[in-house]
Amino acid sequence: MTSQQQYFIGIDGGGTKCKARLEDAKGTLLAEAIAGPANAARDLEGTLNSIYAACDGLLRQVSGPAISYAQIHTGIGLAGVNLPDVKQKLLARPHPFASQTLSTDLHIACLGAHNGEDGAIIITGTGSSGASIVKQKCVEIGGHGFVVGDKGSGAWLGKMAVSYSLEVMDGILAPCTLSQYVLDKLACKTAYDLVQATLNAKPAFFAQLAPVVLNLAAEKQPAAITLVSDGAAYISQLARCLMQQAPARLSIIGGISTLLIPWLDQDIQAILSDAKLPPEAGAILLAKTNLTQ
Amino acid sequence: MTSQQQYFIGIDGGGTKCKARLEDAKGTLLAEAIAGPANAARDLEGTLNSIYAACDGLLRQVSGPAISYAQIHTGIGLAGVNLPDVKQKLLARPHPFASQTLSTDLHIACLGAHNGEDGAIIITGTGSSGASIVKQKCVEIGGHGFVVGDKGSGAWLGKMAVSYSLEVMDGILAPCTLSQYVLDKLACKTAYDLVQATLNAKPAFFAQLAPVVLNLAAEKQPAAITLVSDGAAYISQLARCLMQQAPARLSIIGGISTLLIPWLDQDIQAILSDAKLPPEAGAILLAKTNLTQ
Repeated sequence: MTSQQQYFIGIDGGGTKCKARLEDAKGTLLAEAIAGPANAARDLEGTLNSIYAACDGLLRQVSGPAISYAQIHTGIGLAGVNLPDVKQKLLARPHPFASQTLSTDLHIACLGAHNGEDGAIIITGTGSSGASIVKQKCVEIGGHGFVVGDKGSGAWLGKMAVSYSLEVMDGILAPCTLSQYVLDKLACKTAYDLVQATLNAKPAFFAQLAPVVLNLAAEKQPAAITLVSDGAAYISQLARCLMQQAPARLSIIGGISTLLIPWLDQDIQAILSDAKLPPEAGAILLAKTNLTQ
Repeated sequence: MTSQQQYFIGIDGGGTKCKARLEDAKGTLLAEAIAGPANAARDLEGTLNSIYAACDGLLRQVSGPAISYAQIHTGIGLAGVNLPDVKQKLLARPHPFASQTLSTDLHIACLGAHNGEDGAIIITGTGSSGASIVKQKCVEIGGHGFVVGDKGSGAWLGKMAVSYSLEVMDGILAPCTLSQYVLDKLACKTAYDLVQATLNAKPAFFAQLAPVVLNLAAEKQPAAITLVSDGAAYISQLARCLMQQAPARLSIIGGISTLLIPWLDQDIQAILSDAKLPPEAGAILLAKTNLTQ
């Protein structure tokens, strides 16, 4: 086995999708792939399915001799793994790889954003959370999930927009264009339609409304500005908490980050740096760190 | 069958429990019973189980000759039946009663509160909603469920208290006694404990925190005052919407109503009247109305 070529797969699993990359031992990118949602707290089996679907998607793209799982070192960062109980359940499953290193989506995003150096990261995608790594100490903030946390995230913005729209339709709030955009986007006509469409909806369903709200806010629609400002104030405060550890850099990534940044407090906007590598590349750094320890 | 004595059962089904009463044809109360949750939108089978458990609980208490389902006219008010799809599914199920009349928990509460006369009702229990009946026109507002609605309800207050506590533990909000009370009530020590305790929690689980928040607000705890004031402002606005139809009376009932009333706007507090009969008695009025139509 030792004479065989070794490979690395990095996986970034979030509430909406799972991104993966395959590199050879020299760090050459061989393939990239995307699979389904991978929030381990919300759906453990679905997360494992997404991980293997992503790996198979990578290996299908490689020409030449087939690469076996036993040749691959994986680094996996997943939403939900911050919960000790969820992490234990995942670690208890046998895996087919040469090695597997498991951490949070936040941890690998932070490693990637600063190419393995110290720094802080905020993710605003389907969910929201932040992490800071300074002198090997990793502090994680937020990321408590759709029901009781994830303020300022795509799912949160979408949920707030639906609530707002229902209050408009009830006559509790004054009519506004936001509610019409929400109804149109979800192909609903009445409050009943909207409640039924969202009755058992997952965070990713609500997150599809976030660009609608953010674009309306950019066009100065008052209700959208209220919702986006409220979410952005939380993210600014989260950034301040992360900076208490004095990390060298702060990056913000995730599906809604570009549209959200203009709404963050000026002092936070001023210290943002672009991420150096994507989270799935950070996951490969994690796998390599684990091998050399 | 017509020579047999006829009976009436009224059922009030909500997110936390199902209350039932049995009366004879003269209106004499023969028995009362309580069974499990009955939110038809959230759990149709569980709701049916709770209804039959409540009926069996009533009939077990009656001495003398056994009463059969075929002698009983039922009036049933359920959370979730405002959704047409949910109501259709319930109506499609065969039932063993002499007659069955189905409506919303709001409708029967309003009938009961005003003894079948015109009036308006607000329910603040596990969920929140309001209805107004004027000249046989029934307007229902709110009640859109735990995820996107039910502001000012017990479940909403509990959820907001958990979110607040997590932000305190993350260092985003300043420490306060509210978070300590929340942790103590749920027997949690860390943010992780709290997230895991609430990960798949139902509305009734969050609603158990509502008295904690309301009592802290009464003791002038600032964070609790903020949450309760926000919820109460919504309920006051809901009341104003109901009063647009000019109902003769307005009542507020439900598990947290007594503790919430002092936080409502003064103009709303001033027009409140006590409910005349409980919702399950309103359900019997509904069954009788249906028989005479």
